[in-house]
Amino acid sequence: MIIVLRPDSTKQQIDHILDRIRDLGFKPHVSQGTVRTIIGVIGDENKLQAEPLSAIPGVEQVLAIQKPFKLASREFHPGDSVVVVGGRVRVGGGSLAMIAGPCAIESAEILDTIAGAVKAAGANILRGGAFKPRTSPYSFQGMGEEGLKILRDVGDKHGLPVVTEVMDPRQVAVVERYADMFQIGARNMQNFDLLKEVGQATKPVLLKRGMSATVKDLLMSAEYILAEGNHQVVLCERGVRSFEDSTRNMLDMSAVPNVKGQSHLPIIVDPSHATGRPDLIPAMARAAVAAGADGVHVEVHSCPEKALSDGPQALLPKQYAALMSDLRRLAEVMGKRM
Amino acid sequence: MIIVLRPDSTKQQIDHILDRIRDLGFKPHVSQGTVRTIIGVIGDENKLQAEPLSAIPGVEQVLAIQKPFKLASREFHPGDSVVVVGGRVRVGGGSLAMIAGPCAIESAEILDTIAGAVKAAGANILRGGAFKPRTSPYSFQGMGEEGLKILRDVGDKHGLPVVTEVMDPRQVAVVERYADMFQIGARNMQNFDLLKEVGQATKPVLLKRGMSATVKDLLMSAEYILAEGNHQVVLCERGVRSFEDSTRNMLDMSAVPNVKGQSHLPIIVDPSHATGRPDLIPAMARAAVAAGADGVHVEVHSCPEKALSDGPQALLPKQYAALMSDLRRLAEVMGKRM
Amino acid sequence: MIIVLRPDSTKQQIDHILDRIRDLGFKPHVSQGTVRTIIGVIGDENKLQAEPLSAIPGVEQVLAIQKPFKLASREFHPGDSVVVVGGRVRVGGGSLAMIAGPCAIESAEILDTIAGAVKAAGANILRGGAFKPRTSPYSFQGMGEEGLKILRDVGDKHGLPVVTEVMDPRQVAVVERYADMFQIGARNMQNFDLLKEVGQATKPVLLKRGMSATVKDLLMSAEYILAEGNHQVVLCERGVRSFEDSTRNMLDMSAVPNVKGQSHLPIIVDPSHATGRPDLIPAMARAAVAAGADGVHVEVHSCPEKALSDGPQALLPKQYAALMSDLRRLAEVMGKRM
Amino acid sequence: MIIVLRPDSTKQQIDHILDRIRDLGFKPHVSQGTVRTIIGVIGDENKLQAEPLSAIPGVEQVLAIQKPFKLASREFHPGDSVVVVGGRVRVGGGSLAMIAGPCAIESAEILDTIAGAVKAAGANILRGGAFKPRTSPYSFQGMGEEGLKILRDVGDKHGLPVVTEVMDPRQVAVVERYADMFQIGARNMQNFDLLKEVGQATKPVLLKRGMSATVKDLLMSAEYILAEGNHQVVLCERGVRSFEDSTRNMLDMSAVPNVKGQSHLPIIVDPSHATGRPDLIPAMARAAVAAGADGVHVEVHSCPEKALSDGPQALLPKQYAALMSDLRRLAEVMGKRM
Repeated sequence: MIIVLRPDSTKQQIDHILDRIRDLGFKPHVSQGTVRTIIGVIGDENKLQAEPLSAIPGVEQVLAIQKPFKLASREFHPGDSVVVVGGRVRVGGGSLAMIAGPCAIESAEILDTIAGAVKAAGANILRGGAFKPRTSPYSFQGMGEEGLKILRDVGDKHGLPVVTEVMDPRQVAVVERYADMFQIGARNMQNFDLLKEVGQATKPVLLKRGMSATVKDLLMSAEYILAEGNHQVVLCERGVRSFEDSTRNMLDMSAVPNVKGQSHLPIIVDPSHATGRPDLIPAMARAAVAAGADGVHVEVHSCPEKALSDGPQALLPKQYAALMSDLRRLAEVMGKRM
Repeated sequence: MIIVLRPDSTKQQIDHILDRIRDLGFKPHVSQGTVRTIIGVIGDENKLQAEPLSAIPGVEQVLAIQKPFKLASREFHPGDSVVVVGGRVRVGGGSLAMIAGPCAIESAEILDTIAGAVKAAGANILRGGAFKPRTSPYSFQGMGEEGLKILRDVGDKHGLPVVTEVMDPRQVAVVERYADMFQIGARNMQNFDLLKEVGQATKPVLLKRGMSATVKDLLMSAEYILAEGNHQVVLCERGVRSFEDSTRNMLDMSAVPNVKGQSHLPIIVDPSHATGRPDLIPAMARAAVAAGADGVHVEVHSCPEKALSDGPQALLPKQYAALMSDLRRLAEVMGKRM
Repeated sequence: MIIVLRPDSTKQQIDHILDRIRDLGFKPHVSQGTVRTIIGVIGDENKLQAEPLSAIPGVEQVLAIQKPFKLASREFHPGDSVVVVGGRVRVGGGSLAMIAGPCAIESAEILDTIAGAVKAAGANILRGGAFKPRTSPYSFQGMGEEGLKILRDVGDKHGLPVVTEVMDPRQVAVVERYADMFQIGARNMQNFDLLKEVGQATKPVLLKRGMSATVKDLLMSAEYILAEGNHQVVLCERGVRSFEDSTRNMLDMSAVPNVKGQSHLPIIVDPSHATGRPDLIPAMARAAVAAGADGVHVEVHSCPEKALSDGPQALLPKQYAALMSDLRRLAEVMGKRM
Repeated sequence: MIIVLRPDSTKQQIDHILDRIRDLGFKPHVSQGTVRTIIGVIGDENKLQAEPLSAIPGVEQVLAIQKPFKLASREFHPGDSVVVVGGRVRVGGGSLAMIAGPCAIESAEILDTIAGAVKAAGANILRGGAFKPRTSPYSFQGMGEEGLKILRDVGDKHGLPVVTEVMDPRQVAVVERYADMFQIGARNMQNFDLLKEVGQATKPVLLKRGMSATVKDLLMSAEYILAEGNHQVVLCERGVRSFEDSTRNMLDMSAVPNVKGQSHLPIIVDPSHATGRPDLIPAMARAAVAAGADGVHVEVHSCPEKALSDGPQALLPKQYAALMSDLRRLAEVMGKRM
């Protein structure tokens, strides 16, 4: 950690700062510049960050040097982590997660139709929401446990592990009973009690980036899950809020190599929520694979105009099949298995 | 609701759209333009929004006309709502909430010192966090129920109602036991299960705007609480994420008149979290009162450099007292009571 | 255009609005809803937009239906435009522009080295700045006309057409004398006098997206150039400002299919300025090709640590060669020529 | 400047970095931490910034300590600068600029009506655009020199100095002939050739913040003008781009105290362009004065529904008069002269 002092800091202030640093068990190292004095602080920065050094009189700014996450970092775990979903689908380390399904589970019949179609197209994990985070209290809120049962049955029938969203710490037990993977949605990326709860569970977690979260924030939220003992975390870039008003969110594709440079965790891309537009989803799914993502998450619905949630952003089964055929060729160029 | 058709939409597509609208119980009204056809849909838009009309072939865009919130709207409740905290402090309708206190409750002694100072300066509600949402799992997470007891005792001693954050639906009961007002933090503005839970409680709620929430999103989250029966909601602008890197967030001051034009709910401003900089907080607190806010929320700490959370953004008690003296004169110009 | 009236609009206000619309030569079409009245306005929206309809008392909002650009739109020109640079390099319609070179022209020797390297790696257009837009007045501002001469000579020697930035309408003539293509930088995307000036020139234009420009804004700026008679415009996505602080800008990859859906103009991607990080550039260049971009613009320098401008974001020649080998395989999958 | 090395940097790399620093005429100062080595570089940072230190192998990041602007900084000029417009209106140092007028100059009659009204309400500078930066090439582009003449005549008649926008370096001479103050619009904040041109002129400059400019960027653009010798610069906060879609831009009110802490230059606020909504403008004008701004810039039109540009965001003369009455009382509380 580096403490930059104000040009007008007094000797008394500097001495007070040095005392505080030593009191906290760290070693200060003073550099006298022509305009400013800077103090290097030597020791474990994770312990020091909690201390409000920048509030000490005479301090202009405090610059962190070390990364604030540890278990999620490549320094801690140099190789790529591979997360195994449902005991058989590998995500990361060259294996791609092709997650597909409707936004919400609406009925066994509809989900069965969609699952059959995406399985045939090459998807290896089925998605579907039973607990839905809706902006409006008057919108469809999901089928709850009944939906989870349908998801489990349909997944088993088609031989697809299943992932579904959990929104409330009190739902973790019931979701774990039915699903192979928890999804933490963008709105809950910093719902820390929920992160701790899935961190104590035994199933893997798909953690979506929050709408205004930096890549560092995303990795800090992963750290919450890892710190509780659950090391099976897959990250998901799904777009962030921006001024561009022709897409639902702005897909930050650079998050893929950005995460991979700093962390061993797999990261997939969700072009459906990122763009909200079926005409843009295929191009963004292709770009994700070429950027090195460990998978793609796409919403598919057999009848988007009757979907109870987010119909307008779903691909039709035949559009998904055409996309998967492109992705297969790109995965080959990238040396990945689908 | 207005449905704009694509220039190349076919008669068959248009007929299908008209059938769907009538099936849903609405009345379509067709306008044939020189380039495009548009269809006005007459009926209760809140029911219609759930339907994915934009996924129907031939549709270019669907434009909503009515506001998606109802109980939070001025149309529903034309006068200003007044929320009463702790049975005596009025917020809204010309009465200002002056909320002050430390970020986190650290000990009875420190809180007592701070409470005495802010009370003397004119604060009328005491704040302090017992459950803290921290970006890092390694940071201080709050004192929990022990902190709540301290907050209650110190508030009672100084005759100040108390507000504190609740992060998890399972904490609502215990927080309600000790506090006079729930705070829902920015990270939980769209934690819908938590909103429903405080919506069923009997104490008022201070709902902070999410870091990437629009004003409409904020009002939709208030609607979740109102829809459960709790009408005692105070909104709080606390800054949103932006590209400006010299302040912690960007304070959207225009949210104050923007909310007031659309909603009857009181809205206060939190310049501490918005700027993260004590040198900017007083100017932003003054601006908030001049903009018509129903109160100001400021973090105050007697020794910021030893605070366990967010010390660098706290004002010292004497800085807070000087600020309150300015705010009193501005409130008078604005015709408000402090 | 659709005019939505306020719920409390009076008959007198509505009559006044209808009169205004007819005065302007348009035909109004009234739809009476249960809560609100809406008025469809039939006629050429481009003429109407200039009129401040939303300022008329009783109007709640005015919704545009038609796109505000015309010459840039696919409706005007359904096929893909192909822009030819230097009489031989085709951009668009399946042909990729591989633009490479240093940020700034520094000397004939350095440029010659870099040009030889990027030509060998497969680049087909050479870039280099002679007039540099620098945030600080104390930074290197470019070599001016002397740099243009060097660029021309080095381009000719290696058989590469050259593109360079023009910042001031007064520089257009001299830049046109030496270069094969004008570049309009992000900071000048809405420098309308400059756009008009290159619109009257005869060389093609590479128009970069502004840092806070929407896709629609970008197309409107292209419209300025097209409206002056120069139809040789190539667009460039180069990242926009965002809250993410670990990359220089946020690359909006979805702009590629987004533009292609609305416009016939070619669009390329510049991952160098978008990310500012050599470790992220190759992944973003690959993603651009997979997303359907018509080319990639990459800064390359033989000695980044001594570059006079933006050295830290340049690839080394050997890194560029490795990237080009990947891009060649991806272009093949996409059915494109490089 | 502080150079942070990568944990895996080699001794050879460190020696190379130290050699480079000494070659450039600076003195390195090495601190060996437990995980990382950091190098403090002592000397004039403005000279060093041009050097691409972060491109040197082994370097993780380079942290600037000094501010990149000099003439604009408070360190260079500790007192508040006062800019005098038209030989008599003082801006800064306790004197408020109350700038008002229509967006565009449309005719002598209309401008005369508006000027009379705003003068009566207390405005002290008249604004009006003769050269208009319009997003669409098909919108009204301004009256040019004829408009400038009208502005001069009307200003003289009412005893108001006049400010008008200049968009092109070639217009500087003609604008200087007629106007008392140049306005550089948001879209041209980084039009560096234009900045240099007005920097060589003798009239004061009103420099508006760019839509995606940080406060530091704004001060760097002011530095361009100051560095050419023109020290009469007034800054203007007018909102930045954000995800909030109910206002035209997001007014960053904290820019007022933020600038004042770092710079001696006056700063005013333009709530008209910031919000684009007459219902929000008065509250934001009041907030600006309370935040400590040196003036307020408001668009006023006698018939907004017939304005040729930006009519919907103009206040009516009577609304402006009511606002000015509020501002007068707030200015008094703030100890300012209007």
